[in-house]
Amino acid sequence: MSERQKIIAVIGDSQCSSEVAKLAEDVGFQIAKKGAILICGGYGGVMEAASRGAKRGGGLTIGILSGKDPDEANPSIDIPIVTGMRDARNAIIARSADGVIAVAGSFGTLSEIAFSLIFKKPLVGLRTWQLSHEDPQKAISLKTAGDAAEAIETLWESFNC
Amino acid sequence: MSERQKIIAVIGDSQCSSEVAKLAEDVGFQIAKKGAILICGGYGGVMEAASRGAKRGGGLTIGILSGKDPDEANPSIDIPIVTGMRDARNAIIARSADGVIAVAGSFGTLSEIAFSLIFKKPLVGLRTWQLSHEDPQKAISLKTAGDAAEAIETLWESFNC
Amino acid sequence: MSERQKIIAVIGDSQCSSEVAKLAEDVGFQIAKKGAILICGGYGGVMEAASRGAKRGGGLTIGILSGKDPDEANPSIDIPIVTGMRDARNAIIARSADGVIAVAGSFGTLSEIAFSLIFKKPLVGLRTWQLSHEDPQKAISLKTAGDAAEAIETLWESFNC
Amino acid sequence: MSERQKIIAVIGDSQCSSEVAKLAEDVGFQIAKKGAILICGGYGGVMEAASRGAKRGGGLTIGILSGKDPDEANPSIDIPIVTGMRDARNAIIARSADGVIAVAGSFGTLSEIAFSLIFKKPLVGLRTWQLSHEDPQKAISLKTAGDAAEAIETLWESFNC
Repeated sequence: MSERQKIIAVIGDSQCSSEVAKLAEDVGFQIAKKGAILICGGYGGVMEAASRGAKRGGGLTIGILSGKDPDEANPSIDIPIVTGMRDARNAIIARSADGVIAVAGSFGTLSEIAFSLIFKKPLVGLRTWQLSHEDPQKAISLKTAGDAAEAIETLWESFNC
Repeated sequence: MSERQKIIAVIGDSQCSSEVAKLAEDVGFQIAKKGAILICGGYGGVMEAASRGAKRGGGLTIGILSGKDPDEANPSIDIPIVTGMRDARNAIIARSADGVIAVAGSFGTLSEIAFSLIFKKPLVGLRTWQLSHEDPQKAISLKTAGDAAEAIETLWESFNC
Repeated sequence: MSERQKIIAVIGDSQCSSEVAKLAEDVGFQIAKKGAILICGGYGGVMEAASRGAKRGGGLTIGILSGKDPDEANPSIDIPIVTGMRDARNAIIARSADGVIAVAGSFGTLSEIAFSLIFKKPLVGLRTWQLSHEDPQKAISLKTAGDAAEAIETLWESFNC
Repeated sequence: MSERQKIIAVIGDSQCSSEVAKLAEDVGFQIAKKGAILICGGYGGVMEAASRGAKRGGGLTIGILSGKDPDEANPSIDIPIVTGMRDARNAIIARSADGVIAVAGSFGTLSEIAFSLIFKKPLVGLRTWQLSHEDPQKAISLKTAGDAAEAIETLWESFNC
């Protein structure tokens, strides 16, 4: 994989505040500026903002759609992959990514965080879920960042480890 | 669905302590005593203990296998459903359940908790994940129980709502 | 698997003529009489007729639903497994079966025949697809039967090989 | 979708004769020359030859992998999408394509032909399966071509209908 472009997932809700959208767009822009491909769920909200940012940064965008209609992808998706598998497609987003940035998000995002952990993908959270466990041995602390630039830096540091 | 037997998912790790296994077996036993069908991932640890409990209670057990070999199901699984889809099968467990009990568990269990929340399934946790969110409006408090009997009672109360 | 009940898939269209329905019901009835569990797609047409036959024969029926609503299963399904994965669930039906009987059927049935061949499942066809290949070395002749009893006999013979 | 690049699937075996590989490479080359993106299963044989041809033609290549390791993609795949879903991923290839060209192929290819028919995708076969049905009303005649150029022409004609 050394010569392939990195593929970075941005995960988050299909609806979001303008503040969160701004953050997601910035994440997408910086992913493109790093020369990486953006992968996401392909619809609105955080996904659309990140895709728009990536296109503004000159990058390539892939939408792993849960539905069956490629035309439902947001307008900044270059390549719609049509799974038709509803929420089970969340596993594909995490599996296909070299790294994952979670921006806010609800239960779908939580499932993608879980898959990222299962697949041992580098993961950075921005205003998203935090996890604790009744069994302290199973607790895990997700890496977080304060803004898009820090999220990107933190993620790329994990690639160099 | 009114006349069908309820289907209850028990989710948890494929490896667990004897204490957690005891808890899972008790959960499985009580599910069977309630006249419900047990559904789980079909392998070892919490899944095996819960299946064994359900069989001891005279119930029926279904294993939604991530692999491709039905013979890898634990010996207390009556009906192995062979998905071959690896972790994406976690969505099927949550979708097929009328209610979900999480017993301890790691990242796979977290993904199943997330799917249970996406699909709005009644869910009770025993020594498992707790969730918080940087955005207080998105925070959610999972229902918990102290033992198997309380977990079952809490779950069945949610059915009557 | 030696001690588990055999699981037999009946594959076919969600709409069918009364003649084909009669045939499918007979297949389901005889599967139950053999002591096997019926698995199918869980909806109407051939699936419903086969499920009804299996219940009349005292058997257990499993529906691997492509949709997300267990209440859409036909009334003779005991256990609806809800995949939400649309047509990709066809692979699960073939993987979970010890043997497959195709009754008439259209393109969905063709995909299930293909998966049965991929997974090397014993397969018998009744009034269904026949395959040829431009490369004679890749051609395959599906086993066929004239009626339900012969289909069952042919399938069970393959189990004894 | 009008402004997106067309996505064309090439389906076929992971092992093939040098003659079939030559044909697949020619198909991939001409897909790229038409300005379309190639999608395939991402591994060897027909998939690798088609990918190599597409790269030679200056195109972009996507591999929808059934496994869990992106490094198993053939070296001409630009973007490996990692499903981990084994053969159930065949549905995704057909769903994501605007058109499909089948080159030789065995049972996996047959399942992809079936999905292409389910999803009503334009489909052209080169030295591949032919279908007949015991019920003449259900019979279907797949479009075929004698060489890569004719396959491409036939496929693009169907887009203009």
